[in-house]
Amino acid sequence: MNARPSGGRVVALPSHGYFSRRSEVYRQPSSSPKKYLTLDTADPAGFPLLLGGYLRPLTIAYETWGALNEAKDNGIMIFHALTGDSHVARHGPDEPAGWWEEMVGPGKAIDTDKWFVLAANAVGGCQGTTGPNSINPDTQRPYGIGFPIVTIEDMVRAQREFTQRLGVERWKAVIGGSMGGMLALEWATAYPESVDRALILAAPAAQPPHAIAYHEVGRQAICLDPAWLGGDYYGRTYPVQGLATARMLGMITYQSPVLMEGRHGRKMEGSRTIPHWFGPRFAIENYLTHQGYKLVARFDANSYLYLTRAMDLFDLGRNRGGVARALGKIQAQVTVLGVSTDVLYPAAGQRALAEAMRRAGAAARYEEIESPHGHDAFLVEEKAMAGVLRRFLG
Amino acid sequence: MNARPSGGRVVALPSHGYFSRRSEVYRQPSSSPKKYLTLDTADPAGFPLLLGGYLRPLTIAYETWGALNEAKDNGIMIFHALTGDSHVARHGPDEPAGWWEEMVGPGKAIDTDKWFVLAANAVGGCQGTTGPNSINPDTQRPYGIGFPIVTIEDMVRAQREFTQRLGVERWKAVIGGSMGGMLALEWATAYPESVDRALILAAPAAQPPHAIAYHEVGRQAICLDPAWLGGDYYGRTYPVQGLATARMLGMITYQSPVLMEGRHGRKMEGSRTIPHWFGPRFAIENYLTHQGYKLVARFDANSYLYLTRAMDLFDLGRNRGGVARALGKIQAQVTVLGVSTDVLYPAAGQRALAEAMRRAGAAARYEEIESPHGHDAFLVEEKAMAGVLRRFLG
Repeated sequence: MNARPSGGRVVALPSHGYFSRRSEVYRQPSSSPKKYLTLDTADPAGFPLLLGGYLRPLTIAYETWGALNEAKDNGIMIFHALTGDSHVARHGPDEPAGWWEEMVGPGKAIDTDKWFVLAANAVGGCQGTTGPNSINPDTQRPYGIGFPIVTIEDMVRAQREFTQRLGVERWKAVIGGSMGGMLALEWATAYPESVDRALILAAPAAQPPHAIAYHEVGRQAICLDPAWLGGDYYGRTYPVQGLATARMLGMITYQSPVLMEGRHGRKMEGSRTIPHWFGPRFAIENYLTHQGYKLVARFDANSYLYLTRAMDLFDLGRNRGGVARALGKIQAQVTVLGVSTDVLYPAAGQRALAEAMRRAGAAARYEEIESPHGHDAFLVEEKAMAGVLRRFLG
Repeated sequence: MNARPSGGRVVALPSHGYFSRRSEVYRQPSSSPKKYLTLDTADPAGFPLLLGGYLRPLTIAYETWGALNEAKDNGIMIFHALTGDSHVARHGPDEPAGWWEEMVGPGKAIDTDKWFVLAANAVGGCQGTTGPNSINPDTQRPYGIGFPIVTIEDMVRAQREFTQRLGVERWKAVIGGSMGGMLALEWATAYPESVDRALILAAPAAQPPHAIAYHEVGRQAICLDPAWLGGDYYGRTYPVQGLATARMLGMITYQSPVLMEGRHGRKMEGSRTIPHWFGPRFAIENYLTHQGYKLVARFDANSYLYLTRAMDLFDLGRNRGGVARALGKIQAQVTVLGVSTDVLYPAAGQRALAEAMRRAGAAARYEEIESPHGHDAFLVEEKAMAGVLRRFLG
């Protein structure tokens, strides 16, 4: 049960604000191929979280493609990135395209004629799985910042319980990029006997400090927005400008200087969205502003706070004697991907992760996509990614 | 005449804000070795600006070290970076250290026993030179966003008129890093006959789009702060959180991932400055928050908007038929410096700038500092910088 903040209502922005445009705020799509499963937990307090607190109930929203075979051994799990969701690809022509539309489907690199594909919205998200916009049973109001801190470990443990309920004990492959790559890595480490192959796309074994730093600035921007209201904005206001600003910064780190140079350069355009006094705008500014607004229309600001924090808190070596020992637990065949221009998780770090896996005894390969698209290449470079996936699934 | 926003008064922050601490806001130092000169302009409207508008009066705040010789040919001009000022070094033991204290002084790399050194606060700044916190003669109130857009070209033209008033027609050297490097480059191009040598530290010939993008996010954060009040906060409120957030982002781009990894890693600390609900903080977060507050205590938020915009608008090739033709005007001997880990103006771009100068016929050398300190290396790597300066001044 998710509250719909402001129900898609148009929110007036303060007149002195940098954004002078009005923007529609996020609402969930009205028709959706999503399924929901609420976990029964052994503990009556609910689903316990690593850093304290419980979730009660914990509902997982998910989508599936293809059919699970009788042996239940043809399953592939895909994990979304920070602002993604379970909608990886269409189920039919009426649906909007998914975020990996060209990768998943009949005859595609992840062939749904062959594989049973599952994608769940992460715990703490805003696309159907329990998150800060869900109803807190203790108050009968949305959690807001009353939501407990969740970790990548919690997300994976919830997914493990949930998929066992579906009857799948062993996965042919776990696949994810960015935050989704952290989930795939945690799956392969926490449940080594359950994962045959793992594909880690542009994701580290522990969030590096510069990535924490970027996230922290984005969170500051959200909390700086007077419409954030201490996280209690549901049905009242919406921190449009704060979330849009956080997204603008995110986009810079997901792309690359060379991409921006080639696409936008120093081109200038008329000013429509900012006050006259600051004159014309650069195309790169308008592009980022547009991207910021686009996210506002589909994402909950508090989820942005919680999921970025989960990423920051990710350290595969926690409670496992360090990253090297954690990697030693992996039994899956792993492919680690780096992107030549990734500024968030540079290729050198991805290569080093694959090497560390091999030193720890895991069967790890490294692949690199040569692309100007930076971190986002795993979403954008469809042809290269299809090749990575085909080689990975063998 | 600069208004002192809030006169150093403690400003209450909104209780729901991310920053729960109170912070003292910026005030100018009470005692200062600064001198002031107000330009008489031929045009009674005032000093005309490239993109429209006038400044009337235009006062320049500056400091000098050493003595101008009789031939008036031993002058070196140093230009500060975005949030710097004219206080490059102490004049005596009672003064606070300057931002290049170890570089400038008797017997130092820029030897004030030999050279007459001048540094002025940039137009649009907040350290004594006319800027958005100065009194607008038309309203008798601080300009705020009524301040016209200023460019690097305007700053340099004002400095040219000002230094001619001091009787100096020709400079032994112009030196600057980051925004200061843009000023040095513009000086060498606009007044080629007046500049013997130019040292361009970690600064481009035209602001690249990714740097514009980072700046834009910082500006958004400032304008997002309800205390910004459309720029009209002087004597009323102060956008502490907005400016601190902009500075946090700036600091990320001035350092490097490898520096943050080595200095802070994933170390966690207690939470003192953010609400309990978000749990402990990473050391990198506390460090950046601290840096954000430090800037708030010494810098005007509107100047941050105007000076970042001046940098974004910098294109040496504007009105000169492009960068290559502009570089062809330079007569000075130029050294361009890159820093191996600079994420704002990567070393490859600095090297390319020196090569473009040589292709254009200028006498240009390239030097690179191997350092984890990123963009800030020209401020931090004192030993390496002293070497660069000694080689540069020959």
